[in-house]
Amino acid sequence: MELKDIKSPKDIKNLSIPELENIAAQMRNAILNRTSKIGGHVGPNLGSVESIIALHYVFDAPEDRLVYDVSHQAFPHKMLTGRVDGYLFEEDFAKVGEYTDPKECPEYDLFYAGHTSPALSLCVGLAKARDLQKQKYNVVAYVGDGALSGGVAFEGLDAGGALNSNLICIFNDNQMAIAENHGGMYSHFAHLRETNGTATDNLFKAFGWDYIYVNDGNNLEKLIAAYSKAKDSAHPVVIHINTQKGEGYTPAEEYRERFHYRDPYIISSGALRELGSGPSYGGVFKKFVLEGVKKYPDMLVISSATPDALGLNEKDREKLGDNYLDVAIAEQTGVSVMAGAAKNGSKVVYGVVSTFLQRAYDQLMEDWAMDESPAVLNIDSTGIAAITDQTHLGFWDIPMITSIPDIVYLAPANLEEYEAMLNWALDQDKLKVAIRQPNYSVEHADYPVVSDYSDLNKFQVTHEGAEVAIIAVGDWYVRGKEVAELLKQKGIDATLINPRFVSGVDAALLTSLSANHKVVATIENGSLEGGFGQKVASALGASDLKVLNFGLKKEFIDRYNVKEVEKAYGLLPNQIADSILHAVSVA
Amino acid sequence: MELKDIKSPKDIKNLSIPELENIAAQMRNAILNRTSKIGGHVGPNLGSVESIIALHYVFDAPEDRLVYDVSHQAFPHKMLTGRVDGYLFEEDFAKVGEYTDPKECPEYDLFYAGHTSPALSLCVGLAKARDLQKQKYNVVAYVGDGALSGGVAFEGLDAGGALNSNLICIFNDNQMAIAENHGGMYSHFAHLRETNGTATDNLFKAFGWDYIYVNDGNNLEKLIAAYSKAKDSAHPVVIHINTQKGEGYTPAEEYRERFHYRDPYIISSGALRELGSGPSYGGVFKKFVLEGVKKYPDMLVISSATPDALGLNEKDREKLGDNYLDVAIAEQTGVSVMAGAAKNGSKVVYGVVSTFLQRAYDQLMEDWAMDESPAVLNIDSTGIAAITDQTHLGFWDIPMITSIPDIVYLAPANLEEYEAMLNWALDQDKLKVAIRQPNYSVEHADYPVVSDYSDLNKFQVTHEGAEVAIIAVGDWYVRGKEVAELLKQKGIDATLINPRFVSGVDAALLTSLSANHKVVATIENGSLEGGFGQKVASALGASDLKVLNFGLKKEFIDRYNVKEVEKAYGLLPNQIADSILHAVSVA
Repeated sequence: MELKDIKSPKDIKNLSIPELENIAAQMRNAILNRTSKIGGHVGPNLGSVESIIALHYVFDAPEDRLVYDVSHQAFPHKMLTGRVDGYLFEEDFAKVGEYTDPKECPEYDLFYAGHTSPALSLCVGLAKARDLQKQKYNVVAYVGDGALSGGVAFEGLDAGGALNSNLICIFNDNQMAIAENHGGMYSHFAHLRETNGTATDNLFKAFGWDYIYVNDGNNLEKLIAAYSKAKDSAHPVVIHINTQKGEGYTPAEEYRERFHYRDPYIISSGALRELGSGPSYGGVFKKFVLEGVKKYPDMLVISSATPDALGLNEKDREKLGDNYLDVAIAEQTGVSVMAGAAKNGSKVVYGVVSTFLQRAYDQLMEDWAMDESPAVLNIDSTGIAAITDQTHLGFWDIPMITSIPDIVYLAPANLEEYEAMLNWALDQDKLKVAIRQPNYSVEHADYPVVSDYSDLNKFQVTHEGAEVAIIAVGDWYVRGKEVAELLKQKGIDATLINPRFVSGVDAALLTSLSANHKVVATIENGSLEGGFGQKVASALGASDLKVLNFGLKKEFIDRYNVKEVEKAYGLLPNQIADSILHAVSVA
Repeated sequence: MELKDIKSPKDIKNLSIPELENIAAQMRNAILNRTSKIGGHVGPNLGSVESIIALHYVFDAPEDRLVYDVSHQAFPHKMLTGRVDGYLFEEDFAKVGEYTDPKECPEYDLFYAGHTSPALSLCVGLAKARDLQKQKYNVVAYVGDGALSGGVAFEGLDAGGALNSNLICIFNDNQMAIAENHGGMYSHFAHLRETNGTATDNLFKAFGWDYIYVNDGNNLEKLIAAYSKAKDSAHPVVIHINTQKGEGYTPAEEYRERFHYRDPYIISSGALRELGSGPSYGGVFKKFVLEGVKKYPDMLVISSATPDALGLNEKDREKLGDNYLDVAIAEQTGVSVMAGAAKNGSKVVYGVVSTFLQRAYDQLMEDWAMDESPAVLNIDSTGIAAITDQTHLGFWDIPMITSIPDIVYLAPANLEEYEAMLNWALDQDKLKVAIRQPNYSVEHADYPVVSDYSDLNKFQVTHEGAEVAIIAVGDWYVRGKEVAELLKQKGIDATLINPRFVSGVDAALLTSLSANHKVVATIENGSLEGGFGQKVASALGASDLKVLNFGLKKEFIDRYNVKEVEKAYGLLPNQIADSILHAVSVA
C-alpha cells in the first residue's frame, strides 16, 4: 500500500504491522517533504506518526470522536483522512493547514484546537452529549507535546475523572513542549517512564482515571494492543505513551527545540534555507534582558514555553541562569508569577506571544493590573503579519489589554523607540507596562525618540500640518507616514502623530486639533472593535472633527495573504489616502 | 486574652492552647455578628478559624509571606492583623472588606485574590524573587474552599513542584466549593481523608511536593504541630487539612451551600432577614432551564460552581439530573464543555458570573466563537449594581465579549425580553449567543417584544422623535427612558432606541438618524472603553452627528455606593439630560 493511495482510515484497517510500518516510513518522508519546503511543525509530527496510525487502526472515526490537543501534531491524522496530497505535492500544500480544521474536513476534524490544552474539556462535552443522547462510541483526546501543563488540561482531567462513562486520553509524552518541559509533574512523568508506568503517586489515577502505560510509543504493535484494551471502556482511561520527538530524522532528534517548528530547511543537513540578518526587534529584546540582569541581579525573566519567540536560545538561557524561569505552557501562571515577584520587589520581565496571552485575561485584570506590581510585559507576534492561522491571530491584544484599567500599553514604532520603551519600563518602579513588540517591517526612527514615558497618554506630534491629522499606531506608524506623503502630493500637508500609548488618549491634543483640522484618521495594526481608534472616535464624538478609523475587522481570517487582506479592508496607503480625501471633500 | 484586644499576630504568640481555643470561639461569634447583620461568607470563615490562628502562631508574618486563595476565607487573618473591630462593631464593618486587600492592610495583605486559584502561582513569584534576593523566610499559600479546581491552581502546583526551595501550601479541604465539590480529584481527596493521608496516587506528590496530612483541621494542637514541621522546609510541601465548613454553627454545618455566602440572617435560626419576592431575572432563567430540558431531552445545563447565582437550588438540580453538570470552579472548562456538547448536537446552556467568565477569554475565542457551536451563554451579576468589590466587578463583560468575533451578545431590557431572548437563543441552531442577564431594576416591557432575533444587530426604535436619539442598552434602557422624559420637559421629543445587540451596530439605522437628529447619546451599564458606545461613535465618526457616550469609567472602584458612583460619573438621568442639552445647544 502506498501512502498516496490512502483515501480514508478504512484503507489501513486490514494492513499487517509491517505494512503499517511502511506507511509510517512514507509518512515521515512526507512530513519532511512539506516542512522542509514551507516550514511547519517537524518534531511533534515525526513523533506522533505511529501513535496516530494506531489510533485510526483501532478506533473507528468518524463514529468514534478523535480530538487532538495541540493539533499541530496531527499531520499523520490528516494524511489518513483524505488529505495526503497536502504533504506530497507542493501544489497542494496550501490546501492543508497546520492545525485540525472543521472547515477543511468536517468529518474528521472536530475542533480547531490551535491553542494547547482544552481537548480533555472539549471531550467531556462530547461525551456528556453522547450519554444524554444515549449513544455508544468512543471519545478520544490525543494530548501531548507539552499541552498538559496548561491549566484547562488539568480542569479537563478533573471533570473527565468524574465522568462515569467512556472517555479515553492518549497522553503523548515526548518529554518536550516547544522547549524543554518545566514543572514538578515532568519529574513525575520521567519517573513513570523509568518504572514502566508502575511508579506510585500516579497523577492520572489521582484524578480518577484508569491508567495504561506504553513504553515504546513508536511501536505500532504495542500501541495497538494498548488502544484495543482501552476501546469501549466504560470508565475514563489514560494511555500514557512514551514517544520520541523528531523520531526517525537525526537533526530533529538531536535539536528537538529547533525542530519543534522550523522555517524551510535543507533535509540532508537540517540547515535553514534562509538565515535572518540585520537588526531585529527580537535582537533588541534579547540585548535588553541580557543587559537587564547585569544591572538588576534579582531580575526575573519569565517565559511560558516560548523562549524562542523572545529570541532567547539555549545559550542565552544558560547565561540568564536562575534569573530565567520557564513556567511551561501556562500563561495564567506566567502573569501571576510576574505579579508575585514584582510584589517582592524584583524587576520582572515576562515575554509572551500575543495569541497565548489570551489565556491570562483574568490574571492580567485581577493579579496584575489591580495591584501595585510594576513589571514589564513584552508581547510579541502582534498584528496582521505575525501568524496567519486563525487560531493564532495577533490582532486581538489591543482590545483585550486596553479594556483593563491600570495597564500602560505602549506601541513602539521602530527599533530605537522599542529599546527606549523597554528600558524606561524596566527602570521605573510604579507602573505596570505592556509593550507591543513591532512585527511588520524593521524601521528606524526619523524623529527624536524620548527616554521617558511617564507622562501617560502623551501623543507625539512628529509633523505639524493642517486640515488632516493622522494618528498612526506602533508598527503602522510607517503607514501613516506613507499616507501623509500621498496626501502631500494632493496638496494636503497632514499632521502626523505617533500616539505611542494605546491604552488611553491624549485628550488635550485631540481637542486642540479642532483649531485647524477637519479630519482625524487613526491607523492601527489591530482589530478595530474595542481598539485604539474607537477611543479616539469617542473622545472626539462631540467635536466638529470627522473621525475615520482604519484597522482590522472583527472576524476570523485564516491562512491569508497579508497584502490581500489589507487591500480588502481598504488599508493600503493609497486606499487610506483616498478615503481621507473623500472625507475632506465632504467635510 | 480578649479578641478585641488583639492588635497584631504577636499578641497570640505566647498563648496556651486553651487560650487560643478561647480566641477561636470569640472569632466565631464575631463572624456571625458581622455576617448576620450585613451578609458575607459565613461557612468558609467558620471552617478556617483554627487553621488561620495556627498559621499566625507558627509563622511570622509579615516577614513570612501569607497568601490566601480564595481570600473570602481570610476573616480570621484580618482579626489577627489589627482589623478585629470590623467584625465586632457595626460602625466599623465598612472599614473592612470581604477579601484580603493591600490597600486596607499593606503589611499583612499581599494580594487581593478575590478570584480563586492563583495563590500558588503568586507564591512561586514571591519565592523566586526571595531566592534571587538571597533572603530566607517562608512563603505560604493558604488554598481551599474549592479553589484547587481552577486551572491556574494546578499550573501553580506544577510550577511550585519544580521550585527547589521553600514553599508551603496549606490545602484547606472543607469538602466544598460554593456548592458541593465536583471532579475526579475530589474522590481522591475523600480517599485521602479516609486513609488519614496514606492513600496511594497522591496528587500533590505527583506534582513533586512533600505531603503532610492533618485529619482534624479544626484542632489547634495538631495544626500547630504540622505547620511547625513544615516551617523553614527547603522543599515545597503541602499540608492537607481536613476542616469542617461552617464549624461551630449548626445552620451553617447543616446547610453548607446556603451559608457559603449569606445575605443578612437571624443568628438563632439562620433564617434570612428579608426574603425576596415578586418576579426576578433569576426566576425567568430557572423556569427557562427547567422547561428547556423537557423540550430537549439531551439539553445540557452547565454551571461552574455557582448554581445559586443561576437561581438553581438543590431541588432544581435534582430535577435536572443528568442534564446538569457542575464542572467545579473551572470556567475555561465550562466554555470548552459547552463547545464540545454543542458540537455533538446537544442544546447547551452555560450560566456563569460575569467576573468569573474573565478566566475563559481564550476558550470563548478559540473553542466557542471560532467554531460552529450554537449554544446559550447566560451571564449574570453584570453591571454596576451587581457586586461592588473591585475584584468582582460586573462591568468588563461588554468590552471582553464584544471584541471577540462571531459571538452574538444580547442585552435584554426587561423580564419579557430576557425570556424571549433565552427562548430564541435555545431554539435556533446556528449562532453562538451570549445573554446579559439584567441586574439593575426589575422592569416590564412597555413596547412590543419580538420572539426572533435572527436579524442581527437590528436595533429597535421604541419611540420616534427628532433632534436627539438615545440608544440605551439592556438594563439601562429604563434610564434612557427617564432621560427622554426629562428632555421632553425641555421641549425635545427624543428618539428612544433599544439596541438589544451590543456586539454590533445597526449601521443603516445610525446613518438614517442624520436626517433629523443632531445628537446621539449612548447609555450603557458597563465600561465605556472598548464597549458598545464607542462602536457607535466610530460608526458615526464621519457623520455630522455629535455622539455622546455615557457609561462607566475604566477604573477599579471598590466597595462603592452605586448612586454615588453614578453621580460622580455624570450618569444620573438629570446629569445625562443636561449633557445632552448642552451638546444640542452648541451643535
